[in-house]
Amino acid sequence: MKTIGVIPKPTKKRLIQLLTLLESYKETKITSLKIQSLTGWKDSLIRHDLWLIGFNNGVSNGYFVSELIEKISLALGFENSPTIKRKCCIVGLGRIGAALLDANFFAKTDFIISAGFDSNVNRVEILRSTFPLYPANQIEFVVKKEQIEFAILATDDKDANTSVQRLINCGIKGIVNMTNVVLAVPKNIKVINLSVVNSLMELSIDV
Amino acid sequence: MKTIGVIPKPTKKRLIQLLTLLESYKETKITSLKIQSLTGWKDSLIRHDLWLIGFNNGVSNGYFVSELIEKISLALGFENSPTIKRKCCIVGLGRIGAALLDANFFAKTDFIISAGFDSNVNRVEILRSTFPLYPANQIEFVVKKEQIEFAILATDDKDANTSVQRLINCGIKGIVNMTNVVLAVPKNIKVINLSVVNSLMELSIDV
Repeated sequence: MKTIGVIPKPTKKRLIQLLTLLESYKETKITSLKIQSLTGWKDSLIRHDLWLIGFNNGVSNGYFVSELIEKISLALGFENSPTIKRKCCIVGLGRIGAALLDANFFAKTDFIISAGFDSNVNRVEILRSTFPLYPANQIEFVVKKEQIEFAILATDDKDANTSVQRLINCGIKGIVNMTNVVLAVPKNIKVINLSVVNSLMELSIDV
Repeated sequence: MKTIGVIPKPTKKRLIQLLTLLESYKETKITSLKIQSLTGWKDSLIRHDLWLIGFNNGVSNGYFVSELIEKISLALGFENSPTIKRKCCIVGLGRIGAALLDANFFAKTDFIISAGFDSNVNRVEILRSTFPLYPANQIEFVVKKEQIEFAILATDDKDANTSVQRLINCGIKGIVNMTNVVLAVPKNIKVINLSVVNSLMELSIDV
């Protein structure tokens, strides 16, 4: 099997989405044509993606779903052990951030939310969650202490960069940015932008 | 000035983000070095992006922010008139969808939420919003009647494709997909995926 280093980025992105799809798929086997009908990707492209991770024999009557899940997880380097979850935090507990306080949201994933932060101390005290909530000025201390790897940033736009500076200070590895703000971070920190408003703008001009 | 057709996709994405940044920028002028410090993009790249939309003279002492906003908006084809907003709807009013019911979220944008939908009729009756909420089986009727162009999909994963089929039926132009599901849509409908879980997966394997 090829190692993850040589799998092209678009293939990795599709494999992540395919993994999510397969985890809720009810049948024992699945064909590339069926995957095509569920995703809109060409069946030849799907077979090529799967060939890249070691499915190099003919599978005209379909792939075993459990084997696909296992090999994709392995190729992408995901832990399957439910005891080894990667720690995340939510920064900003306004409407969007608070909506993510639902533990079910991350239940079947490799991730666990270990902390939430907000600059509004009242909000921190009032909101309920299965993990502890802290004032934003404790980001550095808690992220280091809990060995949190990733942050979901959902602050007001005006507070985004203050919080990001704190996350940079304590060595966060990556940020899912739900604000509309462009984040200036060092090269070793990865940012994925999930702004609803910027996405609507992209849709409307057909980027 | 060049027309939008010849502006490369990465430039368009940066210009959208720059526009959002400039709209909350307080000074009269801004230099490419200042933009670099706020975004992390190279100043030479910024100047090249702006050259593509018509800023071809030397601007060593900075760009006028208002002129930048005007020219970027024009180049990207955004309406500036507050009376011509593009209509969107929210499909799925669980925690994430309901979080978007805040009208302020879209107040300063070119978009207006004209309707919300949920398969749970109780939820539709209980939630409060400044726009009407409907049962999901009215998607086709309302989207056509209101001439809604874009949908924000925030249903449970298991309901995603049922709702998307309804949106396809009534000619939606684009979908911001906040579920973890891959959507199979015809080529003329654009989808932007904003799954928090899939993004964490991408961060964790450094896609």
